[in-house]
Amino acid sequence: MPTHPVSPLAPEKFPDMPPLAGVRFAAIESGIRYKGRNDVLLAELAPGTTVAGVFTLNRMPGAPVDWCRSILKRGTARGLVVNAGNANVFTGKAGVAATRGTANAAAKALDCDPRDIYLASTGVIGQPLAYEKIVDAMPRLMQGLADDTFPLAAQTIMTTDTFAKGAIATTRIDGKPVTVAGFCKGSGMIQPDMATMLCFLFTDAKLPAKVLQAMLGPSANASFNCMTVDGDTSTSDTVLLFATGQAAHKPVARASDPRLKGFRKALDAVLRDLAIQVARDGEGASKFIAVTIKGAASDAAAKRIALTVANSPLVKTAIAGEDANWGRVVMAVGRAGEKANRDKLKIWMGGVLIARNGAVDPKYDEATVMPHMRGREIDIQVDVGVGKGKATVWTCDLTHGYIDINGSYRS
Amino acid sequence: MPTHPVSPLAPEKFPDMPPLAGVRFAAIESGIRYKGRNDVLLAELAPGTTVAGVFTLNRMPGAPVDWCRSILKRGTARGLVVNAGNANVFTGKAGVAATRGTANAAAKALDCDPRDIYLASTGVIGQPLAYEKIVDAMPRLMQGLADDTFPLAAQTIMTTDTFAKGAIATTRIDGKPVTVAGFCKGSGMIQPDMATMLCFLFTDAKLPAKVLQAMLGPSANASFNCMTVDGDTSTSDTVLLFATGQAAHKPVARASDPRLKGFRKALDAVLRDLAIQVARDGEGASKFIAVTIKGAASDAAAKRIALTVANSPLVKTAIAGEDANWGRVVMAVGRAGEKANRDKLKIWMGGVLIARNGAVDPKYDEATVMPHMRGREIDIQVDVGVGKGKATVWTCDLTHGYIDINGSYRS
Repeated sequence: MPTHPVSPLAPEKFPDMPPLAGVRFAAIESGIRYKGRNDVLLAELAPGTTVAGVFTLNRMPGAPVDWCRSILKRGTARGLVVNAGNANVFTGKAGVAATRGTANAAAKALDCDPRDIYLASTGVIGQPLAYEKIVDAMPRLMQGLADDTFPLAAQTIMTTDTFAKGAIATTRIDGKPVTVAGFCKGSGMIQPDMATMLCFLFTDAKLPAKVLQAMLGPSANASFNCMTVDGDTSTSDTVLLFATGQAAHKPVARASDPRLKGFRKALDAVLRDLAIQVARDGEGASKFIAVTIKGAASDAAAKRIALTVANSPLVKTAIAGEDANWGRVVMAVGRAGEKANRDKLKIWMGGVLIARNGAVDPKYDEATVMPHMRGREIDIQVDVGVGKGKATVWTCDLTHGYIDINGSYRS
Repeated sequence: MPTHPVSPLAPEKFPDMPPLAGVRFAAIESGIRYKGRNDVLLAELAPGTTVAGVFTLNRMPGAPVDWCRSILKRGTARGLVVNAGNANVFTGKAGVAATRGTANAAAKALDCDPRDIYLASTGVIGQPLAYEKIVDAMPRLMQGLADDTFPLAAQTIMTTDTFAKGAIATTRIDGKPVTVAGFCKGSGMIQPDMATMLCFLFTDAKLPAKVLQAMLGPSANASFNCMTVDGDTSTSDTVLLFATGQAAHKPVARASDPRLKGFRKALDAVLRDLAIQVARDGEGASKFIAVTIKGAASDAAAKRIALTVANSPLVKTAIAGEDANWGRVVMAVGRAGEKANRDKLKIWMGGVLIARNGAVDPKYDEATVMPHMRGREIDIQVDVGVGKGKATVWTCDLTHGYIDINGSYRS
């Protein structure tokens, strides 16, 4: 399905994701944009499903983001409709009509309130979405609903992605088994202002919407918001977490309930796994990069410095060229605008100490770091020498592939 | 001399720059890094020369920036030494020793206080500068001093630049002729936090240092600080303005003196010309881009939005691909975090109205904007619909050339 070669950083295979009680999926080829591939996904959610969501902070949000924000306070969900190929962003009144029309059609099919239908669109910006094709496809989608279809769902929402991204974790609440399963898409226009473009999470846990929401925010913050491909925040970023309530545990009323310890860990693990998969599918990526900043004035300062390093085109191109060009790391740390002590700065690549006390380490031999630079996984660590703040950000390198993909995306 | 093909955006020729009274230049090949080209520049400044400077806001400034900052309050200058190939940044005590050693040698040669010697270095970060080679070259530099050598000076300080950048303007103070002449270098690691990497300006005006400084800040702000290549602020950014005082006008005591109206205009014109030349020599540039934002909450807000558009890799790659992908402009405007009214937004490219009222203009025909996108000069204008703030930022597109240059800079 992908038009670009599969990322060399892709996982070996899509994870084994068994059906999740209360969720069924169907996908079809709608004819909106792509030929020969599915591009519309319908998820049916069992009655009683609760929902939490976080959305892009971009000031030009798409119509589906406006729609989801407007219904989120109800906290209930019965369906999700996602299309790939057209983002329904900057489409004015036509965009609003498209969200209403799609939600109405899905609500009719699933026999529920349209405000229980969540929507997400991804793809080109500024072109009217031919949502009538989704409406027309609704009967076929209903017929196709099946429960063992996570890979199909993950494939259907792809745009420039080169592999489908799924993750799953199991835990217990009250001693009863609970699963968190999710999939996402995203490859370009990725910057951590809220989330990647689209991420959908499902759990059979029985949790009120406010508990879900209280857990989703911090979890997205520690995962998708620590990941960047190109620094460009999408207008469509959406993370939705649906809880079908089919698990056997007793009710939970508060996010602070100690019985949720394992669930929180499972949720964090799934989001982190998916976020890292997005960085691994960064447009044109040839290397995965983890940037860790320590010794900063605060964790927030560390994250801003890490993001500045991770977004620097000079750092990213050097790594593409397998060049341990730590001087560019110094530049990016300095540019972040956060406190950093030049004369105490330490830099490691692949665990090799390169610089300390504001200069190259006298014992540093570039040959020792070269095997690391030639690998697929690049590790950069910097101690900025002013405090105890720490953060890690994941990204990928900047290669000819990014230019190829983005110089001809619409053609 | 350039190792990369000359930018297709280069001016036809270096401007005609006659000698400026009170300034002489000499250049040599020092052997510090490059072979077969000059890489060290000495400027001799007449006694009585005053000086103003603005420097990088990067928190990891190079040793020469520290040096210049420390001596600037004296307000006097007798010499300038610039080397290309090594930035003397993040070089610890060795870097400080290099600045002292170079200043002492030049001061001895020019018979002045070392604190009247300005220094700038550009090139690779983190490697000790073999400043002894500059010291050894001082006698040869002194012998070579000549006054008709602006092109030589501009060439000597180039690194990844593909053409030498000079500009000149003449005006009058008190009815007496005055010249402002300057040259600069910069092609990558360019972001408007203070200036481009290195810019040197010379005038024969007779102006106290405090008057020069009061004029240089706003002028740099309206020129270099409105220009970006890759969003990466250099650790070496330096703009120095030297006034030799050889012009015939009567003394001027204050920057607010109405007799400086023409001079300010000339200074602005030279800086603006040089800043635009840097964007035209952006690493790998194939198109020059002017991004104008109007209707913002303030001029500062307009500038932040314009910079976000100008730094967006998705906007820059689309333009490289000659794609009028205005959806990405919408995304970048939204990501800037400044007030913008999605439903009043207007976008023009090459003067063609593309979008208005939050959607594509019904009359828009992509064919009308294609001739503009195929040209070398791309004009993007956005009205964000909330106020009267306005700003223009200059940049270039993002091409395979940028990846080529920066994936192998040190090899």
